[in-house]
Amino acid sequence: MLGDERKAEDVLVTTQKDFEKLDRIFSPRSIAIVGVSAEGFGFGRGIYLSHRTIGFEGKLYPVNKRGGSIDGQTIYTSVEAIPDTIDFAIIAVPAHLVPSALEACRKKGAVGAEILSSGFSETGTPEGITLEEELRAVAKRGIKVIGPNCFGIYCPKSGLTMLPGPDLSRKPGGVALLSQSGGLSVDFGFIGQWRGIHFSKVVSFGNGCDLREAEMLRYLRQDPETKVICMYVEGVSDGRDFFTALRETAAEKPVIVIKGGLSEAGSRAAASHTASLGGARTIWEAVFKQCNAIQVANLEEMSDAALAFSLLPEGEYKNCSIVGGGGALGIAAADAAEFFGMAVPKLRADLQAAILDILPKPGSSAINPIDVANPFVGPKQIREILVRASEDANVDIHILFQLLYHYNSLKIALGTSSLKDITPYKELAEVCREAMDVGKKPVVLVIPNIRQDEDSIEIEEINRETRRLFTDAGMPVFDDVNNALRAVASVSRYYKRRPAD
Amino acid sequence: MLGDERKAEDVLVTTQKDFEKLDRIFSPRSIAIVGVSAEGFGFGRGIYLSHRTIGFEGKLYPVNKRGGSIDGQTIYTSVEAIPDTIDFAIIAVPAHLVPSALEACRKKGAVGAEILSSGFSETGTPEGITLEEELRAVAKRGIKVIGPNCFGIYCPKSGLTMLPGPDLSRKPGGVALLSQSGGLSVDFGFIGQWRGIHFSKVVSFGNGCDLREAEMLRYLRQDPETKVICMYVEGVSDGRDFFTALRETAAEKPVIVIKGGLSEAGSRAAASHTASLGGARTIWEAVFKQCNAIQVANLEEMSDAALAFSLLPEGEYKNCSIVGGGGALGIAAADAAEFFGMAVPKLRADLQAAILDILPKPGSSAINPIDVANPFVGPKQIREILVRASEDANVDIHILFQLLYHYNSLKIALGTSSLKDITPYKELAEVCREAMDVGKKPVVLVIPNIRQDEDSIEIEEINRETRRLFTDAGMPVFDDVNNALRAVASVSRYYKRRPAD
Repeated sequence: MLGDERKAEDVLVTTQKDFEKLDRIFSPRSIAIVGVSAEGFGFGRGIYLSHRTIGFEGKLYPVNKRGGSIDGQTIYTSVEAIPDTIDFAIIAVPAHLVPSALEACRKKGAVGAEILSSGFSETGTPEGITLEEELRAVAKRGIKVIGPNCFGIYCPKSGLTMLPGPDLSRKPGGVALLSQSGGLSVDFGFIGQWRGIHFSKVVSFGNGCDLREAEMLRYLRQDPETKVICMYVEGVSDGRDFFTALRETAAEKPVIVIKGGLSEAGSRAAASHTASLGGARTIWEAVFKQCNAIQVANLEEMSDAALAFSLLPEGEYKNCSIVGGGGALGIAAADAAEFFGMAVPKLRADLQAAILDILPKPGSSAINPIDVANPFVGPKQIREILVRASEDANVDIHILFQLLYHYNSLKIALGTSSLKDITPYKELAEVCREAMDVGKKPVVLVIPNIRQDEDSIEIEEINRETRRLFTDAGMPVFDDVNNALRAVASVSRYYKRRPAD
Repeated sequence: MLGDERKAEDVLVTTQKDFEKLDRIFSPRSIAIVGVSAEGFGFGRGIYLSHRTIGFEGKLYPVNKRGGSIDGQTIYTSVEAIPDTIDFAIIAVPAHLVPSALEACRKKGAVGAEILSSGFSETGTPEGITLEEELRAVAKRGIKVIGPNCFGIYCPKSGLTMLPGPDLSRKPGGVALLSQSGGLSVDFGFIGQWRGIHFSKVVSFGNGCDLREAEMLRYLRQDPETKVICMYVEGVSDGRDFFTALRETAAEKPVIVIKGGLSEAGSRAAASHTASLGGARTIWEAVFKQCNAIQVANLEEMSDAALAFSLLPEGEYKNCSIVGGGGALGIAAADAAEFFGMAVPKLRADLQAAILDILPKPGSSAINPIDVANPFVGPKQIREILVRASEDANVDIHILFQLLYHYNSLKIALGTSSLKDITPYKELAEVCREAMDVGKKPVVLVIPNIRQDEDSIEIEEINRETRRLFTDAGMPVFDDVNNALRAVASVSRYYKRRPAD
């Protein structure tokens, strides 16, 4: 009995220790970067300079057996020569030199290391497979290994950045990403910058010889900084363990997943990409459904979902109002809403009358979709429409689309020179935020841009600024109404299925 | 017997006459525009100025009972006062004045008229419905009516333009659009400008009181200038006739269709938009399948399909090569290809070896997907890869994706000021065209842009220029690999099902 209690305590302590180790990996005070050449465009040199550019506040110790200097700092000729202990290591030397470098970093105090080098099990050669075994052996002695064949970790709060991210954002947020693909990780980091998705931790783990999906899911489940978890999975090391970790995690936080390698050719490509075994489409779909994980098809859908989950309040969104013009767009939105399992209820008669009162006639409609008929219906009217539509108990959320590009025609008609001066996008962001505060229903903005001509770049600039103003004010923005409704419906479905606390 | 023969001849003559009438509508020598005010922002004034701006070469006669002048030209106080016969009329006066204006235009010689005014059957009121009946009565006396409640006709060749299109392109091409929605028509017109889709005829017919889907399909089927037909349908006036016209037309030319109003709310909105009855999703889907029409979900998918159909040679595309990097994108492309019914076959062993020879190592793969591993693999190598992959008899088409935004990192690393100078997009367009000529297999380009930050506008500019260079050289361009493969697969499916001549 006493023995059992001590055992349980041990497990708890170990878990806590593991958690603290990972926390230290994401916020290291000192890092050794092994494989930093004094010249050229190597990965090691690149990742060192990226940490300088992004403004990592801890200490960086570049290492290369040939020595030299970089950016005014001495390059140490060995890990042992660093005059300090280290918390973390980044390793970017040829594959056959990695195991000894990893062991040296472990001895120097590193609790974790990311290995950017490739040339391991993904090659399919006996040499590569043996080298990866050696890494695993070092890891078992007490260092957590991320990679090999990865782009590493990006953590905006601590300034840890991944390959090739000197210009990733430093603004922290609640979205985490676990990914077997480095390219997808850094792409998602860049997409987040303009979509308004802000990150807690992004981990590209490549071949995943040691630290990978299940352990990381358990860490992120406990991590108070992470609210939404995204994953790119090609294959998993232990299916049962992954299933358990995914189910437990998705019961507490939304987990959005891309499964790469569902086709025969995709699976073949995954094998040479990260030495992963793909698998049958239907099996994976069943797993995600049983776990209440949100499966998405690609990075765009993942971005859409991550944005919706991070900005919309928890809850079900069964019924939406659709506000905008012209008619075909409203019809497309209603068709898409139904397709994704949502409804577009008729507005209450008195609210219809009140809204119709302020709409241009003929051509408008206030039944829902609310067709404003004219793209120049101004922010004040939009505010009033949203506030009145919020009074309907059957409306859970507003899908507002605005065709800002039409102001270009107005610019031509008025003969003015600045499109920004006549497009009321700033007022629009203000009134939508007000309408949300007054009406207590979220507003989702859709701003399609059909004017992507080479000489219409100002429209693009306005849309980008509009996107920032809205997302900064807590309202998700999409280019396309289909994407907006798919994302909102996935939020609704998740909270409907998730058992209440 | 003789009687029967004369009857058949009559039908033939009538059809030929109808065809000529429609031809004259699309290329009128003189137009009356009824409802042109000397000041303000009315539709009539707008459409008059749009025809001046776009450079319509025929004569324009503005009409308004209050008279005055516009742009230096006298506004006639009545249709009768025009000192000339007219071929066509554009009517934009309040609904109750439309029937008499239409009759006056008919008497003045117009073979057709478009009615921009709304306030007819789409209002659902007895007055509106009666007014539309009156239009139909005038039409029966021998004038073809487009509308009411529409944006009119756009014909780049003749310079006829629709509302509010002063800046639509004058470059003619092989794509036609028939649409019940005016907004969607003009949006598609603008999208065509930068997607590289060029139009023969675009017709927004709104409520369609006279001329509509079936008759227009028969005209476009015969029209030598039209190669691909797009349609936006909310409801049809005669289901059986539409079915016959669609089946016959799709047996000769690809017909791409959006059916709006498939949901309950969408159908409700369609009723107030163009007085159309929607209908069950499954029935419509069956109709399109039986006719071998290409059903698409929205305007983006329609643009993708129209571009693919107008640039790809007729034929089946079962197997594709996927060329690009990084790994996750290749896997996503392979998964998408299979999802849309295409295959990504392993390349012939000798071609794999030849391609692997010129790829950076480690990290690349030449099996197919061909993972170039590094975004800076240059145009010369891309040319060589495409030419070699074309030698494989199992490859029908190449899907090439290029992550041009990565050159931004190179720009930072090199400290250069111009992204355009270091991004080899012009060379890329040249070598891809060469590879297509040498290898005799079409090349499709995918250029995603994950860098849409406010301060990364130069990347957007390069992508837009790249898009133009490729489409001008006959290669379709997509932002997203999923969209590319959906479009290519729809071309392949169409030609597979279409009976050979």
